[in-house]
Amino acid sequence: MSTTTLSLSKSPITGIEYAIPASSDDKAGIDAFIALHPGKKVVVVQGLGFVGSVMGLVVANALTEEYAVIGIDLPTPASYWKIRSINEGVFPVLASDPKIGLYYEEARRKKNYYATFDSYVYSKADVVVVDINLDVQKKSAKNRDLEGYDVNLTPFRKAIEAIGTHCKEDVLVLVETTVPPGTAQKIVRPLLEESLAKRGLATDKIKVGHSYERVMPGPKYIDSIQNFYRVFAGTDEKSAEAVETFLRTVIRTDEYPLTRLGNTNATEMAKVLENSYRAMNIAFMVEWSRFAEEAGVDIYEVVNAIRMRPTHKNIMLPGLGVGGYCLTKDPLLASWARMNLFGSEEKLGQSEKGVHINDKMPVYAFEFLRDQYTGSLAGKKILLLGVSYLNDVGDTRYTPVEGFYDHLLEEGCEVTLHDPHVKYWEEKDLWINQDLESLLKEDYDVVVVTTGHKDYRGNAALLEKISSKPAAWVYDTIGVLTNDEIKSLGEKHVVKVLGRGDL
Amino acid sequence: MSTTTLSLSKSPITGIEYAIPASSDDKAGIDAFIALHPGKKVVVVQGLGFVGSVMGLVVANALTEEYAVIGIDLPTPASYWKIRSINEGVFPVLASDPKIGLYYEEARRKKNYYATFDSYVYSKADVVVVDINLDVQKKSAKNRDLEGYDVNLTPFRKAIEAIGTHCKEDVLVLVETTVPPGTAQKIVRPLLEESLAKRGLATDKIKVGHSYERVMPGPKYIDSIQNFYRVFAGTDEKSAEAVETFLRTVIRTDEYPLTRLGNTNATEMAKVLENSYRAMNIAFMVEWSRFAEEAGVDIYEVVNAIRMRPTHKNIMLPGLGVGGYCLTKDPLLASWARMNLFGSEEKLGQSEKGVHINDKMPVYAFEFLRDQYTGSLAGKKILLLGVSYLNDVGDTRYTPVEGFYDHLLEEGCEVTLHDPHVKYWEEKDLWINQDLESLLKEDYDVVVVTTGHKDYRGNAALLEKISSKPAAWVYDTIGVLTNDEIKSLGEKHVVKVLGRGDL
Repeated sequence: MSTTTLSLSKSPITGIEYAIPASSDDKAGIDAFIALHPGKKVVVVQGLGFVGSVMGLVVANALTEEYAVIGIDLPTPASYWKIRSINEGVFPVLASDPKIGLYYEEARRKKNYYATFDSYVYSKADVVVVDINLDVQKKSAKNRDLEGYDVNLTPFRKAIEAIGTHCKEDVLVLVETTVPPGTAQKIVRPLLEESLAKRGLATDKIKVGHSYERVMPGPKYIDSIQNFYRVFAGTDEKSAEAVETFLRTVIRTDEYPLTRLGNTNATEMAKVLENSYRAMNIAFMVEWSRFAEEAGVDIYEVVNAIRMRPTHKNIMLPGLGVGGYCLTKDPLLASWARMNLFGSEEKLGQSEKGVHINDKMPVYAFEFLRDQYTGSLAGKKILLLGVSYLNDVGDTRYTPVEGFYDHLLEEGCEVTLHDPHVKYWEEKDLWINQDLESLLKEDYDVVVVTTGHKDYRGNAALLEKISSKPAAWVYDTIGVLTNDEIKSLGEKHVVKVLGRGDL
Repeated sequence: MSTTTLSLSKSPITGIEYAIPASSDDKAGIDAFIALHPGKKVVVVQGLGFVGSVMGLVVANALTEEYAVIGIDLPTPASYWKIRSINEGVFPVLASDPKIGLYYEEARRKKNYYATFDSYVYSKADVVVVDINLDVQKKSAKNRDLEGYDVNLTPFRKAIEAIGTHCKEDVLVLVETTVPPGTAQKIVRPLLEESLAKRGLATDKIKVGHSYERVMPGPKYIDSIQNFYRVFAGTDEKSAEAVETFLRTVIRTDEYPLTRLGNTNATEMAKVLENSYRAMNIAFMVEWSRFAEEAGVDIYEVVNAIRMRPTHKNIMLPGLGVGGYCLTKDPLLASWARMNLFGSEEKLGQSEKGVHINDKMPVYAFEFLRDQYTGSLAGKKILLLGVSYLNDVGDTRYTPVEGFYDHLLEEGCEVTLHDPHVKYWEEKDLWINQDLESLLKEDYDVVVVTTGHKDYRGNAALLEKISSKPAAWVYDTIGVLTNDEIKSLGEKHVVKVLGRGDL
């Protein structure tokens, strides 16, 4: 056991390193917490990631009911520090939403949000909210869907079995995880019933439902849970009713009415369809951007003109690529489910294709620069403006900047990173210099706009600074530069914009 | 010449048959018309189809200028009657928009809208608005893109050459036709310059621009021209300015500001991109509908839930198929242009694929019925509710009902048609019985909803009538039936809905 106790889990927020305990026993801690809240329903949130940790906060600050909330995650190097952090007064998610801080303080005051790693907690739960990840394994390097993919349900099944091994026979298990359609009905419910049967308990009292979250890390993090439309369904009538009753206590359903669908296959499909819709709309624009480059057309100008029609408002723009946890995998989850859970011989071919196209975008953006740049990029000093995949938010999960960055490194470039919203790039274990002014004291051969943050739009000081430098390249991969800005920079520099032909 | 003079052109509105004249001389008519309007600018509208005939009306009722408007089309059996009809007091387009009648009456009163077939008219034009068709030739039967396609520019080139042979050297030629991107710059302008040069005239005074229309036949026909956002560009600065000046006189630019793009490639691309966006969004949903059918999910319920998000409002529904003049061909025009006008080695593959998928939908809808129907369809009496491709509008151009209908006929069915908005199905030369009540005195083996007209939605009398019939099939190809309606019909009939699994 000694090697196990030596494992460490480090908080990227405080830098504190926690020794992971050898034993998974936290019975005393759980019991002591629950004893503080007699008569309150116990809600266990399974998974303390971007969704679960904040969902726990929201439930601890429910609107019409006082819950005792316990978050549970695995005692692994990646997760254990979150458990300790929640219990020790440091919320484990950095976010620009001030409500995060307020809600956490309030939960601390009420002492109604505890975190643990002991499955014993499920025996106390009236509600278990499942917020663990269900990942797609892409076979190419850098999680790009260029050589196929797989879906391994084993970790998800184990998490559900952990519930079934301990839970009350009438618990409500509410799956919020984005899952392959069919999962609640064909996997979660049967696994739970099987566990209950093994334990000699009734199998007809359990309630299993699905309601997908639409969490957006960023300035409206809490609102994206509490003040947002919810779609839900149950695996049977009483499950649906139990989900509805629970959601009404935590979500502002007066302003954001709930939508109940016919079955959990439908809600599960709705979530992945939502995300596939966006992924496909981006993929669709990729080839039009290439066409625009060939035809001397500015695709941004064209799309802005088209968006004036309400029927075309959702037309998207391509840019450097697609990032985040959802659009990069959900179409694949759906396609996998169609074949593996519903026995179809056909995949969702177009939706898969969309992911494939999007996953190639950072490579294209790199090749566009390499092919147009006069001379070799090797040894060149390159400044990337933006690491996050999303404008005005510090979210680096599957950011397309990663692929672009890696290619520049492989080419031998000396790359400097800036992002006003990202202090620490977790996937790369890199600390980001957030002081643009000091970064711009250096000269660069190429300045690349890689994220559409407000800080880079219409920023006259930034442009003046760049203009004052020796002649270099400015490469806008996402169309943040206006025509006038391009013209003014172009007097001295070479300016290239993805999706825009040289006019 | 005697065979030519025997050619007839029949008005489907009045039934009058006109003998097509042997000579193309209408100089006297044109001169007499222009003599009525001294000092007025002459606007010639080339093409008297769904767009041109109504564009002529709008220009004849311009907001801030009095124009003398002359429509021109070819003296062919398909078009000659329109010319006569305009001159004789019967507007050649049937539409539910009352403004059509009002505008036409006003033009008759002012005597400022004449129609002809004589190219001499171009010599009088200050402005020529090009509203002719530019078609794609799909190689499969029934204009379906299943075996490739071609774009034959010859008729379009001839039409432009006809202008060049007669026009003033400083005429404004405004192309409104949906064309392959690149057409104004690479085809129209060079052809006109060449003709002018041959005639010994200056080639640098001509003005060529592009501004695409977004005409929607139906109750807001006129508004879809006059009260709608316009995107425009010129092949040079003075062309762009001339287009803008002209458009400001006919369009409500105070409420619907004009958008000028950088060049005509961009405006031409914007139009086909708009339509490709919609075509692709429908195609995208096709495979999800199939998945929904497999998973016992109601795709309509799912999509309605998703549409609650503003970012997802434009998500579409598939239904029976895609019709109309735009979505069925514009992605192909664009792809063709990319390869043939800009020399790209890549087509717009996804956009082409979208048309291909959509073109297969009516066959799928037929096979869905044939495969699920107990027994053979041969000899069965089938009622189709709806012929138009568009809800609440009588437009049969490339309607997907055609393919579905043809398949039923081939299967030996006895098909009855109804559409409250279509009296005459031009492409099939069929007159449609519009009296649903009398049609429902008969019994049918299958009643199929083929168009989403309001008349078929929540129509209690219609449902009661169907319910009172002997047990039969009700097949909803576009999701107009609500859950309650399906349940109530299902007590007696077999009810099938495309995109909805049996729950």
